[in-house]
Amino acid sequence: MSGATDDHSSAGAIDLRSDTVTRPTAAMLEAMRTAPLGDDSRDGDPTVVRLERLAAAMVGKEAALFVPSGTMGNLLAVLAHVRPGHDVLVDPLAHLATSEIAGLVGVAGVVPRSVASRAGCYDLAALAAALATAPAGRVGAGLVWLETSHNGAGGRVVPVDHVGEVGAMARRRGVPVHLDGARLFNAAVALGVPAATIAAPVDSVMVCVSKGLSAPVGSLLAGSVAFVARARALRRMLGGAMRQAGVIAAAGLVALETMIDRLAQDHAVARRLAAGLAGLEKTLVDPATVETNMLRLDVSRTRHDAEAWAAALARHGILVQASGAAQLRLVTHRHIDPAAADRVIAAFAAAA
Amino acid sequence: MSGATDDHSSAGAIDLRSDTVTRPTAAMLEAMRTAPLGDDSRDGDPTVVRLERLAAAMVGKEAALFVPSGTMGNLLAVLAHVRPGHDVLVDPLAHLATSEIAGLVGVAGVVPRSVASRAGCYDLAALAAALATAPAGRVGAGLVWLETSHNGAGGRVVPVDHVGEVGAMARRRGVPVHLDGARLFNAAVALGVPAATIAAPVDSVMVCVSKGLSAPVGSLLAGSVAFVARARALRRMLGGAMRQAGVIAAAGLVALETMIDRLAQDHAVARRLAAGLAGLEKTLVDPATVETNMLRLDVSRTRHDAEAWAAALARHGILVQASGAAQLRLVTHRHIDPAAADRVIAAFAAAA
Amino acid sequence: MSGATDDHSSAGAIDLRSDTVTRPTAAMLEAMRTAPLGDDSRDGDPTVVRLERLAAAMVGKEAALFVPSGTMGNLLAVLAHVRPGHDVLVDPLAHLATSEIAGLVGVAGVVPRSVASRAGCYDLAALAAALATAPAGRVGAGLVWLETSHNGAGGRVVPVDHVGEVGAMARRRGVPVHLDGARLFNAAVALGVPAATIAAPVDSVMVCVSKGLSAPVGSLLAGSVAFVARARALRRMLGGAMRQAGVIAAAGLVALETMIDRLAQDHAVARRLAAGLAGLEKTLVDPATVETNMLRLDVSRTRHDAEAWAAALARHGILVQASGAAQLRLVTHRHIDPAAADRVIAAFAAAA
Amino acid sequence: MSGATDDHSSAGAIDLRSDTVTRPTAAMLEAMRTAPLGDDSRDGDPTVVRLERLAAAMVGKEAALFVPSGTMGNLLAVLAHVRPGHDVLVDPLAHLATSEIAGLVGVAGVVPRSVASRAGCYDLAALAAALATAPAGRVGAGLVWLETSHNGAGGRVVPVDHVGEVGAMARRRGVPVHLDGARLFNAAVALGVPAATIAAPVDSVMVCVSKGLSAPVGSLLAGSVAFVARARALRRMLGGAMRQAGVIAAAGLVALETMIDRLAQDHAVARRLAAGLAGLEKTLVDPATVETNMLRLDVSRTRHDAEAWAAALARHGILVQASGAAQLRLVTHRHIDPAAADRVIAAFAAAA
Repeated sequence: MSGATDDHSSAGAIDLRSDTVTRPTAAMLEAMRTAPLGDDSRDGDPTVVRLERLAAAMVGKEAALFVPSGTMGNLLAVLAHVRPGHDVLVDPLAHLATSEIAGLVGVAGVVPRSVASRAGCYDLAALAAALATAPAGRVGAGLVWLETSHNGAGGRVVPVDHVGEVGAMARRRGVPVHLDGARLFNAAVALGVPAATIAAPVDSVMVCVSKGLSAPVGSLLAGSVAFVARARALRRMLGGAMRQAGVIAAAGLVALETMIDRLAQDHAVARRLAAGLAGLEKTLVDPATVETNMLRLDVSRTRHDAEAWAAALARHGILVQASGAAQLRLVTHRHIDPAAADRVIAAFAAAA
Repeated sequence: MSGATDDHSSAGAIDLRSDTVTRPTAAMLEAMRTAPLGDDSRDGDPTVVRLERLAAAMVGKEAALFVPSGTMGNLLAVLAHVRPGHDVLVDPLAHLATSEIAGLVGVAGVVPRSVASRAGCYDLAALAAALATAPAGRVGAGLVWLETSHNGAGGRVVPVDHVGEVGAMARRRGVPVHLDGARLFNAAVALGVPAATIAAPVDSVMVCVSKGLSAPVGSLLAGSVAFVARARALRRMLGGAMRQAGVIAAAGLVALETMIDRLAQDHAVARRLAAGLAGLEKTLVDPATVETNMLRLDVSRTRHDAEAWAAALARHGILVQASGAAQLRLVTHRHIDPAAADRVIAAFAAAA
Repeated sequence: MSGATDDHSSAGAIDLRSDTVTRPTAAMLEAMRTAPLGDDSRDGDPTVVRLERLAAAMVGKEAALFVPSGTMGNLLAVLAHVRPGHDVLVDPLAHLATSEIAGLVGVAGVVPRSVASRAGCYDLAALAAALATAPAGRVGAGLVWLETSHNGAGGRVVPVDHVGEVGAMARRRGVPVHLDGARLFNAAVALGVPAATIAAPVDSVMVCVSKGLSAPVGSLLAGSVAFVARARALRRMLGGAMRQAGVIAAAGLVALETMIDRLAQDHAVARRLAAGLAGLEKTLVDPATVETNMLRLDVSRTRHDAEAWAAALARHGILVQASGAAQLRLVTHRHIDPAAADRVIAAFAAAA
Repeated sequence: MSGATDDHSSAGAIDLRSDTVTRPTAAMLEAMRTAPLGDDSRDGDPTVVRLERLAAAMVGKEAALFVPSGTMGNLLAVLAHVRPGHDVLVDPLAHLATSEIAGLVGVAGVVPRSVASRAGCYDLAALAAALATAPAGRVGAGLVWLETSHNGAGGRVVPVDHVGEVGAMARRRGVPVHLDGARLFNAAVALGVPAATIAAPVDSVMVCVSKGLSAPVGSLLAGSVAFVARARALRRMLGGAMRQAGVIAAAGLVALETMIDRLAQDHAVARRLAAGLAGLEKTLVDPATVETNMLRLDVSRTRHDAEAWAAALARHGILVQASGAAQLRLVTHRHIDPAAADRVIAAFAAAA
């Protein structure tokens, strides 16, 4: 747990629970020390302004807003797009539906409505039906939600064409589309296209500079100038406006400027893990579905349930996340190198 | 607007608009670079934990929670204390009532109810009446609000006895009390008592490490273990949970450990300003009311209104904040030394 | 307190506190007994449908929705028009601001923003400024509110031209306008124009069939087909959808069909009261300001405060409502005839 | 669709979609015509007061509040019991979870959390676990929900002992319990115990006088004096306070005083239907599960889906409600006599 150095501790555990455990790089820590600062709730902070402009350009939107977390960025998108009483159409495995529901309900007062999906892609006929009709006593759809790479679906990448089809379908109904891009740059690297290409059909997009990009804190919510102005006022309502926020935005700038290309290494390590684990037991994972830095292993046909696997692996110094009884989540990141992947595979073999 | 150095820019303007413009010290920037880190939304971040424990001890509560802003700390207090439909009893000049109303209303769904006050102290008979009765169609009081030092009242300090009387009165009715202590350490220095002595009668208290203490970002909400656990869950709902938040908590530790005693210098500069300005024109300010680092000048009996004064002073390189037509707010802080105060007095004389 | 007869009790008090105390007429009670009924939350109730169509036609809107109270009608208008975090621009004396704030804040999460007004009419320059700018940290105006006749202003009638000017100004900014017409038919009778003429420039309007029109329960919210569909879904969210609501809608039909013209008598009684009371003491009321069925008496230059006046009059069998220390509200209605007015004047003379 | 007579129209359809279609009796219509009235939002309405007292006594609580719908009664219970951000523990088939979610989320800002249940009874181990722990990022349970008779479970009756066990378990955790008793009197008749016996272990209970009891409009929310006072203020916030509400409360009094015992007839007709339909095809329904006035038929092993069945029966003049593809809901009530049940059975035979 030391952030004072760029190296992950070789003595410590191999932590595959999430890419949120990544620590800032030495370049980030130095940038934080020397960044020009201002009062972001008053005249603006020049480093925050630079980060917002860079992020907007990279996702192809007019403007962006720096926020303390991806959860707040997504919540602001809901607040800025959706009137109370309307529904958000959502994949039931989306992070919004599985982990951000309290804010959706408790702050935005908005009802999530599930639409059938697979690997982060909507069943388009089901989406069309959901856009066309409202359940009894509800007002109707106020927002369509997309997520890529898709955490709940094991890091799957939503094809560019699918985003376009969803966007066109929603636009015909006058309903906006938001993209939860907590790991958008993983998707962009996997597809070999700019992030802006993926986000072109959506009205707003949230991206994180933490997670795989390794900045310590922060996310950006991007969209039109009018949308971002509305989100900026709502951010103050939530208490998300900060003072000399340039100290953390500085690390975000290093993340966006220097850390995206290296996500390909995390993806390669994930594929190496998938191949090795499928070699041990092919029902665990289909390597063809490992598109980014995440694996969701199906342990339902093994002798242990997920909690037992997590405990057994922990005894080998390997931390993974149980998700229900049947699934383990493994996430690769900057502190997991190919040698670590091989240790993980060996530990699975020993624990099996 | 450079945070890379501990010095305020001698070439720049004298900025008295707020103590939120203070920049981090060199010691803070170094602490940020070397702090032990963790994922504060997962296992916890050791630097955040240290800051939360220190803050709790300093305000005399069981536990504390690190949040990105004072606004969020106050909003979480309302959410954790008050049921929807209930009222918050509040001084109409409190920062909550004048500047944080959107969250109070739009997130917490709570009605602020004004109670007659002077210099941050309630008319106790009016408070007793407000606690005893609810207006037609309202449920009743769910929280009593205090603020010290009191921004809207010109940095006035609420006497320790008054906090005790309010606390006792509310406790008899089963209503909790929250203290907005954005500048609690200014109040403690002015009174010459520990912050914990002031906060002893209240159920929860929020303090900022930004403002006069000069940390770039962050505040702490303190109370009982159960209260802070509830606030922690609600913080995630708002999107206020951050990842390697130790990078900013590190600066907060330096603020609490080393920056409190020097607030006395800011108070001395404020008194020097008050004496000088009252010497120019005694209706501007009564020096006896300047208890901390803030002056609210009454310009209603001068030849200019507040906006005109602010513009005229800006031409002399001095930034102050107009508050309505009749009032100017001046706030002293680490970047304002006695010489700067003398320049401000001279500029007033020239502009008058 | 007997509704079984059309007569007001000659033995009882003269109750001028509000026109909400009116009891249903014999014709209403008979209509309630014989109305065709259905399940209004399922296939629709034919009597409710008839009332909604009649009300929509009378206020000149495409559609209308039956609701249990004017408060709910107004709240649905706010919910259907305004996004969370936006402001409602409102006269600070409007019933919304003085008496319906809990729902505005606790359900709709919307901030009321006061705009300078006189006798129910906005200062148009202040309104233009409020439409053009948002206070720091707020999103901006989401709705403009009007009320006529204006309860807080003593039953004053907003001129048709003013409604038009407000409507045009708001439309240029893309902001909708709602009219609280709890006593719209009083305004229409006073102006000698159809209610639809007054409401033409606004997007939505709420009218009550209780109050002066004497139906026991109910109000209607009118606007475009799309607006009313949204309000209908939101009504179910609030629990305002009822079953065989035709039993009360039947009385509402009698109210709209037969009770409007007689409001002129209530206005004549109010003028008689005003002339008599001004004759006793001219600072009490300016008869020229009594335009409908309401008087707000200024007792600040008399020997008693408002509570003392109310108590003294009650000893003469006359009930009036104190509003603060300086004001009494008197409302005329179907149970107050000219002879009762003369008894009220005599009681004031005796109590003075 | 005529409510002017006590008889159901013999010429019309046999409507089994819901007991909400019941029309007021002649005695109710007469009571509505002659009830003493007052302004329930001001001094109180004497008929409403009588109904509230009777209902409170019948369900064994200190006080009760008249509301325009069961949905509002349940929503007020949530608002009065649960702080924002907390969860309501709920059977996923409860009416709250299937049909009242918009208000739960959009007004109360409360997250429903599913707990495993069967026939309206919780898995007590699952309930204990849900009471003991909160999901990541949530505050914890603020209310436990019960419903009897249980609509989603086909009118099943929750045993008195189960209500007691749930109540005791929740009380040990300091969590209140609310009972949705929209059809509580059906449950009481089926169990042969007073409603108050069933409701004794819960903190609050909502009962409807519409549905099987045949009043046109209204429900009652009962609990302690303090709870009902809070709910009364919140009712005004929602716009649920009405004026001369005695006109509809009068019918509610007739319902509670005279219509409960006859529910046994509806139950007998439901059993007759069940026996007849199981005789046709035993996979449709297990007669042993038909405890009150409701049947949920499983059509998954027939040749038609639910919509096709509903359409085919409609051609025979019989209205039933499809619930998903596999289920038909049939509800018996005052307008369905044994002969009608036999016609329904014959129509099923013909349609099969």
